[in-house]
Amino acid sequence: MACTNLPSRSLVESLVRETISRHLSQQTTVAPAPNLVVNSSARHMHISPENLEVLFGEGAKLTVHKWLYMEGQFASQQTVTMVGPRKRIIPNLRILGPCRNLTQVELSFTDAVQLGIDLPVRMSGDIEGTPGAYIMGPKGLLEMKNGVIRAARHVHMAPSDASFYGVQHLDTITLKVTAKGCNTRFDDLLVRVDPSFKLEVHIDTDEANACDLDHATNVELFKP
Amino acid sequence: MACTNLPSRSLVESLVRETISRHLSQQTTVAPAPNLVVNSSARHMHISPENLEVLFGEGAKLTVHKWLYMEGQFASQQTVTMVGPRKRIIPNLRILGPCRNLTQVELSFTDAVQLGIDLPVRMSGDIEGTPGAYIMGPKGLLEMKNGVIRAARHVHMAPSDASFYGVQHLDTITLKVTAKGCNTRFDDLLVRVDPSFKLEVHIDTDEANACDLDHATNVELFKP
Repeated sequence: MACTNLPSRSLVESLVRETISRHLSQQTTVAPAPNLVVNSSARHMHISPENLEVLFGEGAKLTVHKWLYMEGQFASQQTVTMVGPRKRIIPNLRILGPCRNLTQVELSFTDAVQLGIDLPVRMSGDIEGTPGAYIMGPKGLLEMKNGVIRAARHVHMAPSDASFYGVQHLDTITLKVTAKGCNTRFDDLLVRVDPSFKLEVHIDTDEANACDLDHATNVELFKP
Repeated sequence: MACTNLPSRSLVESLVRETISRHLSQQTTVAPAPNLVVNSSARHMHISPENLEVLFGEGAKLTVHKWLYMEGQFASQQTVTMVGPRKRIIPNLRILGPCRNLTQVELSFTDAVQLGIDLPVRMSGDIEGTPGAYIMGPKGLLEMKNGVIRAARHVHMAPSDASFYGVQHLDTITLKVTAKGCNTRFDDLLVRVDPSFKLEVHIDTDEANACDLDHATNVELFKP
């Protein structure tokens, strides 16, 4: 009989319930969407003060080349040369400041193919078991035992933004980029919440090229 | 009153109607999903017989280096050097065979940044107003007046596949790639239907890197 093909009563009920709930919540949402900034991160290095001295000499400090969007962060004037396992190199790898506790290099898969390494996708700081490299500076050579990663796509946000989007620290969210012929939705965007953060998405150059970020006409975040 | 916040009767009715219809159609769908192949296209060149002779000499023919997934298509043994407007070059640009009516170079945005050109996203063959380049071969130099593009992401399919997915030639469809930490949905995938086509998605190296295609655990197409 036709009746056996119908969806269950509970399915219909839950659909109607969801629709009513969505309808009501839309009417009570008044907070304006925060200003969303999406930036692509070119390959770069983070470094500890001790490792900086190995490369640039005793007492070396990072100096500001260009301030970044995130408060207090900067591209430094200091660059190094990275040597991969097949002796292929990446010259002019820029160090971002200020110094951190951890030394880490963030590359794209395009860089990894060129270097000939298998690059793991990791959250910044999670470098256990990742590949290492040799780094050459003007005053010395640093052997990184590990710390070479592709940074997992992520979004920095303050608690008020997290509340707006209905997400918590380490949740994932979707970034939708609208660009003619290149519309892309990046799922799995890792949410990082801290009171010091300005709302900013970080994707790498491969991701920015994939979605033609340079010509994007709209960017938005939404829960999957 | 609470009642004024409820969705309209017609909205609820249409939702229930859609759900019933979807439920019924699911039960009657018997065709299995076709075997979906997603390949990334590295930069390459298509060439006309006349232009091939300019670069490789009179009577030159393309010879097979490696057969591609699409019936009759191959990476040829012939490579050329591309010279961009700032005299930067791309060496070892591989020509795909067989020859076509049109000479065209397909690059990624990563290549374009390196060359210093503004690369338009176009469907293959749609090269009006696109940048040109100089191409060097062993027997001569070819001036391409135009034809340098980023190929719009696309999927080749036979009419039976188009019928399975419910799409037509030049429609768009979404490619969903599942890869840990890099889940991505590429919207805007251009559908190209021809009886000679095997089902195959073509994305470029930037797109493949963005979604970590090498480590993808699932790929699927669906209508947006």
